[in-house]
Amino acid sequence: MTTQQLIDQIKIKKSFLAVGLDVDLNKIPPHLLELEDPIFEFNKAIIDATHDLAVAYKPNTAFYEAYGIKGWMSLQKTINYINSTYPDIFTIADAKRGDIGNTSSMYAKAFFEDLNFDSVTVAPYMGKDSVEPFLAFENKHTIMLALTSNEGAFDFQTLNVGGTRGEVERSGAKELYKHILETSKTWKNSENLMYVVGATKAEYFTEIRKIVPDSFLLVPGVGAQGGSLSEVCKYGMNANVGLLINSSRAIIYASNGTDFVEKARAEALNIQQEMEQIMSLTFNV
Amino acid sequence: MTTQQLIDQIKIKKSFLAVGLDVDLNKIPPHLLELEDPIFEFNKAIIDATHDLAVAYKPNTAFYEAYGIKGWMSLQKTINYINSTYPDIFTIADAKRGDIGNTSSMYAKAFFEDLNFDSVTVAPYMGKDSVEPFLAFENKHTIMLALTSNEGAFDFQTLNVGGTRGEVERSGAKELYKHILETSKTWKNSENLMYVVGATKAEYFTEIRKIVPDSFLLVPGVGAQGGSLSEVCKYGMNANVGLLINSSRAIIYASNGTDFVEKARAEALNIQQEMEQIMSLTFNV
Repeated sequence: MTTQQLIDQIKIKKSFLAVGLDVDLNKIPPHLLELEDPIFEFNKAIIDATHDLAVAYKPNTAFYEAYGIKGWMSLQKTINYINSTYPDIFTIADAKRGDIGNTSSMYAKAFFEDLNFDSVTVAPYMGKDSVEPFLAFENKHTIMLALTSNEGAFDFQTLNVGGTRGEVERSGAKELYKHILETSKTWKNSENLMYVVGATKAEYFTEIRKIVPDSFLLVPGVGAQGGSLSEVCKYGMNANVGLLINSSRAIIYASNGTDFVEKARAEALNIQQEMEQIMSLTFNV
Repeated sequence: MTTQQLIDQIKIKKSFLAVGLDVDLNKIPPHLLELEDPIFEFNKAIIDATHDLAVAYKPNTAFYEAYGIKGWMSLQKTINYINSTYPDIFTIADAKRGDIGNTSSMYAKAFFEDLNFDSVTVAPYMGKDSVEPFLAFENKHTIMLALTSNEGAFDFQTLNVGGTRGEVERSGAKELYKHILETSKTWKNSENLMYVVGATKAEYFTEIRKIVPDSFLLVPGVGAQGGSLSEVCKYGMNANVGLLINSSRAIIYASNGTDFVEKARAEALNIQQEMEQIMSLTFNV
């Protein structure tokens, strides 16, 4: 999918919601456990109930790998279902991969070719040659961790960094995640980059937008983790919206009864309507 | 597996070799492609031919994910084969995972429980709460990236870091990977940590051993990537050896003919004998 197609979807649906499909068998409605593939059936029901309110779905691979081969089959069925039934939807494999060059190429092949996701999340620690193999795929998007939504984000991501190997640049020191954002813009095919920025850190968006004004930001942390949608939009929106706000648990576990579909839709609708209002106020549409 | 059991294996086999099972269908002997599961059959043949010379096997998950569900089935068959046939072998899932806490728990479940690996590699970028869920598993080992073997290691890992959020500590600045090593020692169950340090950076081992004198280091980069075994041992060994030297391509692709088993064994034997000599000179045994 091209970035323009994603932007078009956002304008049509008046939504920039990504629904996180982080399916835990201990949390889904118990009546689904009798089915042959409870994870897929749960995802299918959630997707069918929310596809007109969301522009993206984001399965986190951990929740599938935890169930072994059966889990991977559920993941494959889920992405195939989205691609065949709702081809306008932007799909995100939340996998946080990254390795040396030839290995990252295999991960890119796994997510962009074998599973046919539109995008995958990657970790930056191993640097340029661990990310560029993902960027080589046309009309595929690589979403790199910048500033994450968890407490541990402050362990390393916000450290001030200076020069390399032996000398600190006393002037111009900056936080690691900013240095990573700036550096990534010099990589080959960097136009295929998006970034993860946690909603729990709304005050950081102003600074981040100075570095990557045009890039899409995938924003976890609204809802269960406590981030505010309006605050994120205030500081993080650009002229094309430029945000994908993820909500996982608040939507998919809105109920674990037989009404889980209706409750999930109601929760997604709440968020979509707040988004529509924000877009209306921001863009006068 | 306990750390002591790993140390015992190293002393018995006079080897600290980990064989990387990074199987690419384009590189294995073509005659295997006719079999139902070429990846597993290739792994099984390599393992049977080298199990007395190696103390560990390290499949990199990327090479399995690239083949989708069939790839995961090959991975599962491979780990099951090792665990049932050679239970003394230390197994490493080279997965470089890491996510927010509840998600990392799912990854830990995937690799420690579902697949039953002894260890998994993780990325440090998301900090303490992204790694501690792995450390909670008794007699399982979490191998965190410190200083990797690729060129991109110099992009961020060796940046000098100071204080957090707004102030650089002018004195005591240190490289990011050292700060990560030091910080990780304060995490809960940190005795279950090992670290990845690339062989291509042998001169760094002296400094690293000042921070983590007792920890095992998983060392990629010997062989195809150009690192020197003797240099790594000179600066990186401790009283329990404390090193797992990985070799992937140099062993498993020593030949792609019908003699691939013999050639792989010969290459593994070369490395084991060099290790035996180093251990003999170092420990007078």
